[in-house]
Amino acid sequence: MSKHVLAQNQYGKAENRIVRIARRGGEDGAWHEIRDLNVSVALRGEYRDVHLTGDNGNCLPTDTTKNTVYAFAKEHGVTSPEAFAILLAKHFVTSQPVIREAQIRVEEFAWERIPVPTRKEQHSFVRQGQEVRTAQVTYSETTGLQVLSGLKELTVMNSTNSEFHGFIKDEYTTLQEAYDRILATKVTARWANSATAAADPEHDWDGSYRKARRHMLEAFAETYSYSLQQTLHAMACRVLDHVPTVNEVRLNLPNKHHFLVDLEPFGLKNDNEVYFAADRMYGLIEGTVHRDGVQPVIATSDWITA
Amino acid sequence: MSKHVLAQNQYGKAENRIVRIARRGGEDGAWHEIRDLNVSVALRGEYRDVHLTGDNGNCLPTDTTKNTVYAFAKEHGVTSPEAFAILLAKHFVTSQPVIREAQIRVEEFAWERIPVPTRKEQHSFVRQGQEVRTAQVTYSETTGLQVLSGLKELTVMNSTNSEFHGFIKDEYTTLQEAYDRILATKVTARWANSATAAADPEHDWDGSYRKARRHMLEAFAETYSYSLQQTLHAMACRVLDHVPTVNEVRLNLPNKHHFLVDLEPFGLKNDNEVYFAADRMYGLIEGTVHRDGVQPVIATSDWITA
Amino acid sequence: MSKHVLAQNQYGKAENRIVRIARRGGEDGAWHEIRDLNVSVALRGEYRDVHLTGDNGNCLPTDTTKNTVYAFAKEHGVTSPEAFAILLAKHFVTSQPVIREAQIRVEEFAWERIPVPTRKEQHSFVRQGQEVRTAQVTYSETTGLQVLSGLKELTVMNSTNSEFHGFIKDEYTTLQEAYDRILATKVTARWANSATAAADPEHDWDGSYRKARRHMLEAFAETYSYSLQQTLHAMACRVLDHVPTVNEVRLNLPNKHHFLVDLEPFGLKNDNEVYFAADRMYGLIEGTVHRDGVQPVIATSDWITA
Amino acid sequence: MSKHVLAQNQYGKAENRIVRIARRGGEDGAWHEIRDLNVSVALRGEYRDVHLTGDNGNCLPTDTTKNTVYAFAKEHGVTSPEAFAILLAKHFVTSQPVIREAQIRVEEFAWERIPVPTRKEQHSFVRQGQEVRTAQVTYSETTGLQVLSGLKELTVMNSTNSEFHGFIKDEYTTLQEAYDRILATKVTARWANSATAAADPEHDWDGSYRKARRHMLEAFAETYSYSLQQTLHAMACRVLDHVPTVNEVRLNLPNKHHFLVDLEPFGLKNDNEVYFAADRMYGLIEGTVHRDGVQPVIATSDWITA
Repeated sequence: MSKHVLAQNQYGKAENRIVRIARRGGEDGAWHEIRDLNVSVALRGEYRDVHLTGDNGNCLPTDTTKNTVYAFAKEHGVTSPEAFAILLAKHFVTSQPVIREAQIRVEEFAWERIPVPTRKEQHSFVRQGQEVRTAQVTYSETTGLQVLSGLKELTVMNSTNSEFHGFIKDEYTTLQEAYDRILATKVTARWANSATAAADPEHDWDGSYRKARRHMLEAFAETYSYSLQQTLHAMACRVLDHVPTVNEVRLNLPNKHHFLVDLEPFGLKNDNEVYFAADRMYGLIEGTVHRDGVQPVIATSDWITA
Repeated sequence: MSKHVLAQNQYGKAENRIVRIARRGGEDGAWHEIRDLNVSVALRGEYRDVHLTGDNGNCLPTDTTKNTVYAFAKEHGVTSPEAFAILLAKHFVTSQPVIREAQIRVEEFAWERIPVPTRKEQHSFVRQGQEVRTAQVTYSETTGLQVLSGLKELTVMNSTNSEFHGFIKDEYTTLQEAYDRILATKVTARWANSATAAADPEHDWDGSYRKARRHMLEAFAETYSYSLQQTLHAMACRVLDHVPTVNEVRLNLPNKHHFLVDLEPFGLKNDNEVYFAADRMYGLIEGTVHRDGVQPVIATSDWITA
Repeated sequence: MSKHVLAQNQYGKAENRIVRIARRGGEDGAWHEIRDLNVSVALRGEYRDVHLTGDNGNCLPTDTTKNTVYAFAKEHGVTSPEAFAILLAKHFVTSQPVIREAQIRVEEFAWERIPVPTRKEQHSFVRQGQEVRTAQVTYSETTGLQVLSGLKELTVMNSTNSEFHGFIKDEYTTLQEAYDRILATKVTARWANSATAAADPEHDWDGSYRKARRHMLEAFAETYSYSLQQTLHAMACRVLDHVPTVNEVRLNLPNKHHFLVDLEPFGLKNDNEVYFAADRMYGLIEGTVHRDGVQPVIATSDWITA
Repeated sequence: MSKHVLAQNQYGKAENRIVRIARRGGEDGAWHEIRDLNVSVALRGEYRDVHLTGDNGNCLPTDTTKNTVYAFAKEHGVTSPEAFAILLAKHFVTSQPVIREAQIRVEEFAWERIPVPTRKEQHSFVRQGQEVRTAQVTYSETTGLQVLSGLKELTVMNSTNSEFHGFIKDEYTTLQEAYDRILATKVTARWANSATAAADPEHDWDGSYRKARRHMLEAFAETYSYSLQQTLHAMACRVLDHVPTVNEVRLNLPNKHHFLVDLEPFGLKNDNEVYFAADRMYGLIEGTVHRDGVQPVIATSDWITA
């Protein structure tokens, strides 16, 4: 088998589900904060032997990477997905010579408090469902630290102020031009943070997340849209305009089609009131926008190198 | 085949996804309200021929039931899942003699507005993810109207104020007694509304939904729990106490286990701070509570009659 | 809260995932058989105290019910989902006076062998994906044993020999009559076994499963269909005709619509060749057929009592 | 917004579900063949205007790309996922100057015949569930054609012949060495086909798929494993050894943990017989193996460029 070459490889424990409770004082110590994470670890390095002969002498078990996640949550707390992932990525690379690069991916599920008027202690929560926050941190011996942030499953809709016309008509085109349509999408967004932010131990990751999220939502709502591409571009630019530590934004926007139902056969006029919300097929619009002079780093496809 | 008997049967179009936009005035007519529903229709009646010989003379096509859903949304609007389902159920039974009973099930997905400070028009929305509202309306020629309401996928957590001990120990018991644990569950709730409420064309279904939801959440948060059963009972009773038009509540509460991670091997003390959130297996606690003197009607199992 | 009545309730550990390996000899003991199950336990009985006061004195922990599943797999093996569930259900009811009834639900995932021509030992498997086998066993102190078997997620298609016409046309009907259509469905089937079969410790559950499955498939393929209801009836009758220990069959058949794509705009004739496979909405046809003289027991709806 | 740069972008219709029926003669023309596909289109090119101003003059609607998929299925048939995707990719790039590159992704769902002894016509099918076949074809004006093939959701298990020991022990390591464990994984495989195969209109894509699949399964079954990495490497090499038109293989192998259940508390010895099949967390092993002298092209991560 020596004629075959082992190329990129990585391994680790994926989807470590962790809930971290912190007590923030209060008169009886019962003011709780929670962070609810799904943490995945991938290690890259010198793993030729384990692949070719099953010699595990260079292999830190995936079980150990899991233990490290839980132990670090206790030792260091979870101040943000990004900060927690940076700690983990650096630990793996610096603790074992064989590990040259570590990538930590985090999903965070948000909770809000259940208001309980009758007491001061606060330790009851209801899970928010609007979106999942994401982070991906890569730390490499040679190229240093890279921090991506993002979100997914944020579903938004404009019930008007969207048109689509003036497009190419070829022999397979039957689409009618639209002058007032619903525009709905489920946002997946990733953004690359500057090296300065990544290196700053005081960087406010929660704050920059909230800002990026808010400005994307506002740009979606405020843009009178002639195409979903235009809306995508506006959303990405708005984040770059308002969050100075973000250098690059990539958006993946499925066009969640809402088709106006034909009610003519029943003697009814459908004046943009009744829509069928379709599952599949759907348009899929993807794009990257970055600051001038910056090299884009976010992967552009989930299958193939460009 | 005449020796076999056709028993209960039903048919209809399931999962009709419908978005209904209403314009509520504003200076430019651009204050939009949306209702986002998934509507399923089941018809019951005299369908022996279609089963035995494929004679469709008594069969209203499922496609027609779908058309009816969309046409009714235009003609009557959607003031609430329950009110919309009542209209549909009555229509099917009264419009075709062969249809003796109709059951309409609705899921409703909630949206909230994206705040847009720069304009007065409001037609931008972000989907809430906390829970799905449900309704089930059955209208029968002989037994009349029955309206169930409910919700599902409402995930809640108390990070303390939960214990579990004093239980039976048999030869297969290894569980340690717990004096401070996380209690988390994903609530599925159904409640039966009184005949009076069902018959009242002015009944405020959105209002009673909000009240039931709020009191379940508060009961979950305020109950110092010695078992999930006790919490279930408190939640159901609270709804009965506060929503006079509800006669019966059934809850399905998976115990979403959060296991305290053993950090002793790493020289760390885990003082109820770091938990592993498990997927499966899970405890599953189900129960019905109803007003005295009322006959329970909500099905108790999804597979078998009692 | 004494004015409210606790009605039907049950609890137990759900979705215990278990793989049981058995070595069936061979020259080196390496002929392995596997059973891969998902087992859920529900206990019913005298649980008033645990609900009203949190007194767990009558409560066998759900964790113990999980341990029992695993211990029984070792002690008794898994000869079939039904036989294993019968053992468990009887154990719970007979071992604790407070438990009056136990219901065990099982899903079984099938595996087939990976052919390895180079060796005699057989311990390599690939998971089959066609369907999930199901069983539900209820054992009650008062009413004894009830055994349901079934399957789900068995997707089938006839690419011709299906028509649909002659149906009711009302004011909301736009459907065209069809004289040659695809008929596709994802079968969920449950069947009730006779008390004799349930009581017979030698009953061949795997054999009756294979027979029921085969005859449903053949009936689906051989029936020239004028409605999915007719096909449903034929499938149920065929099982009753060929499996004498089955008394009742209930089928849940979503009509997985395949719409003929209109290719006329492109100058192409679509002679039943190119279809769009839709996700939602879908027709949903459900029905029970039983032997004459038998009382049907399979639940007819997942939400509400009839 | 001129200070921001639009970088990689693409768009098209995703998840076009298509069933293509072909009649292969037989005495009455009723021998049917089916191909059941999920086809996604992504177009890349000169789309600056549509993003910056919403001018759609360069934009072929995603709806048109959908129509093209269905029309091509009629005009050209579907001889294999790869061949169909090549036709589509070339069409888009050659038909519109603005489109510089097209990527077509296909999932194929397999069906097998329902045996019907009583007739010669064959048009009844049951869907196989073992795996989904995948293909991805990229055609670029400048770099030409690239064809990836693959599969996903192929779940396999060895119930013995797997060990794991000799690994690094650091301060967070608690894992015990294992000398006989279950090895189970759900295979996602992608392989890159040679330019020669891609350019050959007669290439037997179905044949090379079957060969790659068979040899991966055999390598999994026959490899006595000291690590999942070793098994991964053996599987990839086996494909390269037996399928000469494949240049590169990438595997994504989650380690589906089966934990031996501790039955000691119940006085039972668990001699590798009873396992708990866990959902999450899981080890995740990924790697690429390619022929010497070949440049790897399959993306190594779904989030970030290396």
